[in-house]
Amino acid sequence: MTEPTPTRHPNPAGIQRVAVLTSGGDAPGMNAAIRAVVRTAAFEGLEVMGVRRGFSGLHRGELRLIGPRDMANTIQRGGTILLTARSATWRTPEGRASGAQHLRDNGVGGLIVIGGDGSFHGAKLLEQEHGIPVIGVPGTIDNDLYGTDHTIGYFTAVETALDAVDKLRDTGASHERIFVIEVMGRHAGHIALDVAVAGGAEEVFIPEDDKPIEDVIQIVKDSVKKGKMGSIVIVAEGVPGGAQGVGDAIQAGTGLETRVSILGHIQRGGTPVSSDRILASRLGEAAVYALMDGVSGVMVGRRGGDIIHTPLHETWEKRKDVNRDLYRCAMKLSV
Amino acid sequence: MTEPTPTRHPNPAGIQRVAVLTSGGDAPGMNAAIRAVVRTAAFEGLEVMGVRRGFSGLHRGELRLIGPRDMANTIQRGGTILLTARSATWRTPEGRASGAQHLRDNGVGGLIVIGGDGSFHGAKLLEQEHGIPVIGVPGTIDNDLYGTDHTIGYFTAVETALDAVDKLRDTGASHERIFVIEVMGRHAGHIALDVAVAGGAEEVFIPEDDKPIEDVIQIVKDSVKKGKMGSIVIVAEGVPGGAQGVGDAIQAGTGLETRVSILGHIQRGGTPVSSDRILASRLGEAAVYALMDGVSGVMVGRRGGDIIHTPLHETWEKRKDVNRDLYRCAMKLSV
Amino acid sequence: MTEPTPTRHPNPAGIQRVAVLTSGGDAPGMNAAIRAVVRTAAFEGLEVMGVRRGFSGLHRGELRLIGPRDMANTIQRGGTILLTARSATWRTPEGRASGAQHLRDNGVGGLIVIGGDGSFHGAKLLEQEHGIPVIGVPGTIDNDLYGTDHTIGYFTAVETALDAVDKLRDTGASHERIFVIEVMGRHAGHIALDVAVAGGAEEVFIPEDDKPIEDVIQIVKDSVKKGKMGSIVIVAEGVPGGAQGVGDAIQAGTGLETRVSILGHIQRGGTPVSSDRILASRLGEAAVYALMDGVSGVMVGRRGGDIIHTPLHETWEKRKDVNRDLYRCAMKLSV
Amino acid sequence: MTEPTPTRHPNPAGIQRVAVLTSGGDAPGMNAAIRAVVRTAAFEGLEVMGVRRGFSGLHRGELRLIGPRDMANTIQRGGTILLTARSATWRTPEGRASGAQHLRDNGVGGLIVIGGDGSFHGAKLLEQEHGIPVIGVPGTIDNDLYGTDHTIGYFTAVETALDAVDKLRDTGASHERIFVIEVMGRHAGHIALDVAVAGGAEEVFIPEDDKPIEDVIQIVKDSVKKGKMGSIVIVAEGVPGGAQGVGDAIQAGTGLETRVSILGHIQRGGTPVSSDRILASRLGEAAVYALMDGVSGVMVGRRGGDIIHTPLHETWEKRKDVNRDLYRCAMKLSV
Repeated sequence: MTEPTPTRHPNPAGIQRVAVLTSGGDAPGMNAAIRAVVRTAAFEGLEVMGVRRGFSGLHRGELRLIGPRDMANTIQRGGTILLTARSATWRTPEGRASGAQHLRDNGVGGLIVIGGDGSFHGAKLLEQEHGIPVIGVPGTIDNDLYGTDHTIGYFTAVETALDAVDKLRDTGASHERIFVIEVMGRHAGHIALDVAVAGGAEEVFIPEDDKPIEDVIQIVKDSVKKGKMGSIVIVAEGVPGGAQGVGDAIQAGTGLETRVSILGHIQRGGTPVSSDRILASRLGEAAVYALMDGVSGVMVGRRGGDIIHTPLHETWEKRKDVNRDLYRCAMKLSV
Repeated sequence: MTEPTPTRHPNPAGIQRVAVLTSGGDAPGMNAAIRAVVRTAAFEGLEVMGVRRGFSGLHRGELRLIGPRDMANTIQRGGTILLTARSATWRTPEGRASGAQHLRDNGVGGLIVIGGDGSFHGAKLLEQEHGIPVIGVPGTIDNDLYGTDHTIGYFTAVETALDAVDKLRDTGASHERIFVIEVMGRHAGHIALDVAVAGGAEEVFIPEDDKPIEDVIQIVKDSVKKGKMGSIVIVAEGVPGGAQGVGDAIQAGTGLETRVSILGHIQRGGTPVSSDRILASRLGEAAVYALMDGVSGVMVGRRGGDIIHTPLHETWEKRKDVNRDLYRCAMKLSV
Repeated sequence: MTEPTPTRHPNPAGIQRVAVLTSGGDAPGMNAAIRAVVRTAAFEGLEVMGVRRGFSGLHRGELRLIGPRDMANTIQRGGTILLTARSATWRTPEGRASGAQHLRDNGVGGLIVIGGDGSFHGAKLLEQEHGIPVIGVPGTIDNDLYGTDHTIGYFTAVETALDAVDKLRDTGASHERIFVIEVMGRHAGHIALDVAVAGGAEEVFIPEDDKPIEDVIQIVKDSVKKGKMGSIVIVAEGVPGGAQGVGDAIQAGTGLETRVSILGHIQRGGTPVSSDRILASRLGEAAVYALMDGVSGVMVGRRGGDIIHTPLHETWEKRKDVNRDLYRCAMKLSV
Repeated sequence: MTEPTPTRHPNPAGIQRVAVLTSGGDAPGMNAAIRAVVRTAAFEGLEVMGVRRGFSGLHRGELRLIGPRDMANTIQRGGTILLTARSATWRTPEGRASGAQHLRDNGVGGLIVIGGDGSFHGAKLLEQEHGIPVIGVPGTIDNDLYGTDHTIGYFTAVETALDAVDKLRDTGASHERIFVIEVMGRHAGHIALDVAVAGGAEEVFIPEDDKPIEDVIQIVKDSVKKGKMGSIVIVAEGVPGGAQGVGDAIQAGTGLETRVSILGHIQRGGTPVSSDRILASRLGEAAVYALMDGVSGVMVGRRGGDIIHTPLHETWEKRKDVNRDLYRCAMKLSV
């Protein structure tokens, strides 16, 4: 069998130049996505303008051309070389008008927004009000976006949290203590669930669920009776009371020494793992092709092995549930 | 919404005790799979016997009961606590008869084999000749098994290889050298392809492909002209000549300083990453349920988010192709 | 030159059996120290009893023989396989008498205590009241023990904290934010200082120092003026108000977005780095030899490349200052 | 106690501008050393010119000013941002004369060379022939330089090699195999010895030693008899025959399955560990101060906690022995 020959993509939209920005919280793999946009564009003979500081920079006109060589040695870096920021101005029609003007002045035929549903909302308004084609790329560690199996940054966040759980287990087992560990996930338990299964946790609390604390106290008590040395309980940050609330309740209910650890922002940073770099590479490529195909107002995502398009508004209107089979699996394996 | 209640699985096969072994090359996540077998069984009220040293230990009768507590602090460990070995004796009818006798003597109602297609072949013979139900669980870093998107150990191997590529890139860029890096994959380019995309490689050679070395020499030359500092070329071990052959050809063809690095066995070991632990947890659970359901002679696998069964013989008769879209993507992004 | 031949150590004290325990907070490398005690003893023809759960287990008689094979595959593990616990009973003469009796009943000629100065205090009382030879081995992540350049666990804790700082810097730089990061060190700034220099921090707060917050606010303001993207401030936990206090003051004083991250217990766990394993190996060996030489009531430590002995009481009476040259260096390099 | 106030260093040499280059093999922490030179100089009001591609770039005049902001986000990066190269031209008087002229034309009052003894030789010739003050900074992973306890990059190389050994041990133990692992060290066994102790190896071969292979074969046989699952043997690359030779001999002599793994270039790269960043920070600072003090022709090093100066010629004339106590320790602990 012979090597696949990458051929030029058709360009019915006649796009010559695209812009790309990162918005919202940073996520590992954003640089890999920017790189994929820049290099796919270069392969296809298009130019790319990088917008610094998200929509905040866009309405101030912080655009500049970036080429393939500018992306050397970035695929392995956390954060975003384009920077990111919140923008109150973008919520005003004037702010968006200013951004649209900058794009037009620079001959930009379409904007690629790497971020979460809040950022896609900002992109959608730009498209609606000014007719500028926009494409969303899911970049957020929480994995809480409808329209893609996984979001860029999610795999790395899980790995970082898991590494912390492995470390805490060493200490928990040595002291025969209970550790209640808070991972990210304001509205969704995806990270918590993965970390719980992979970390061999006794219990997991997620925002999607209303587990009675009494049951958990009983489980921890049973776990001690079974001779387990140290217990791990994972709590998503969006659970009411957070890890501190759960930890206090367990300590009060069991009388056992309980420690709380809130992993926090470390889950956002670091070298992206392979899965995030590969996902980012595929989606960055797909975003450029969507614009060339004349598509707008959608987020590119991956389902199974396929690239799919989802209307931007569905990303904030629809909800992606956690994996219920995995949830059940987690509970059995803590037996 | 409320928490899913894990309920007892029906047991039409009336199985009371299962055995589990690991066979072939070790892979990170095998312990997580053993743990999932043991704990799922415990949850369902079944007993588990661990067989040491694969089929070699089975025909010698190295079986012992293992319980949920024996699996404490194993989910994060590389290698296999049950050990693994090659067995010439198993290739004889007498060896398999002896193994079958040990299983019957211990009241084992089904055998779970964690390994690759060679190991599944040995399992299939046991089933055919002695009527013992067998289930395969795909545990091999190469990801070259038909019937599952991914095999246990694959994700960790990719991550280990990628970490090495990141390190070599530091040196390659500092010396403006070409690095030709050999990753595992005797018959398949899955690892090579993932590492190439995630590692930002200029080129990748896989066994599935017959890329002319002249083209690669040209690509490296072009890459230097474009001002790239240092180039990375990934070669799967199954490519004729291996990395050394490719490296020699590139050095001869370009006149540029070329270094060869063969990553070797480090790709087999280490703490499994979350994706391998989760996959192993799901498949270990599924293997127990398959036996309880009276199923035999299949490998459990995961496609998309679903657990699927594939007849064992298909795992060595059918071929899983590499991801062609990813391949094309790799070539564009090295522009 | 020929290989050094390890010869038998003289044993004027005529010791046949030693006991070893870990006490206080666990530290990475404790297992390597236990292993070194067990294997040095085996090399010299002595037996070793492991005491579980520190002094708490000692007064309850939780002793058992451990041999060289029991220590296989432990050198790389965090935590302590002998477990650790606090013991109120040990603070009573009765508790210690009970512990002494258990040691005598088991024919133990000397006790090796791996822990911090609190643990050494408990050991000293055992020696004074019951004449049992005791040797301390410095095992604590804080590095706050007089009589040794470094303590076992310190190097790993610094590495773990540094890895977190590297991750937070990705996010801090992407958002152009200030990150105030709290590292361990209740009474000492060793970890904070190393992390500050190695992490390229703008500022560092340690318990040994009374830096006015106004100066720091000015430094952060200057740093922003100089065009730095994101600032890192390191705070040792023993600083009044902790990272939260410092962070609030900086946010109030500069008006800049400031995030606080408290790294917490993750700094205790994890695979020990090479420096901790090597230090633990040397000190475990030295502890056995001290007992064989008839020495008691001292802590073994390393200064430069030499093994030294320090009377146990000096470990809590004398103070090890932080490295002032390094402190000055830190402040210059943040220019 | 109050914070130490960093005060300006006197500048009797009246130096206004220094140059810095990296030479020879790259080593993790070189960037931290460059950063320390640049920031110390900035703190003292001096300018710094960075020379690209070592002496090769110097004789071609590849110099440019670098300021403190250019060093942002470099302390954690492997490799060298100034690049490094071998230079045949520098071995000619004409090449050195050209380099000296470029330094004078740019008003450079002193040159800091980060590298090994070969690089220091090149620096010494520049000083002798052209009267330009030079200071050496020990940057090489091998740790084979007289005049400093450790060299920049050494700690990271040991950590990388140790991580590989931990991974191989997983596989070795699972298959009950012997692993012979080659680490870097062409003339010195420092890395090998540290890795052997920290990795719990059964045996270690270093260039400083002429251990008979028969003894090792006996040790491996004994080790198997004692019930050890898997053995690790560490070989420094400078040992005649290398790991392959040792592995072949062991396999032939014991009849046991033996695998050889040559770790190679991965030991050069990667994020530097804290010890390398701190050492680099101290030595970069010390190099600037040496030039300001009017010192030349020495290497700055660290012994114990002190900065020391060693005449450059001693770095290649004198030999640093490996730690013999550690060597003896290694052999006992493999009991």
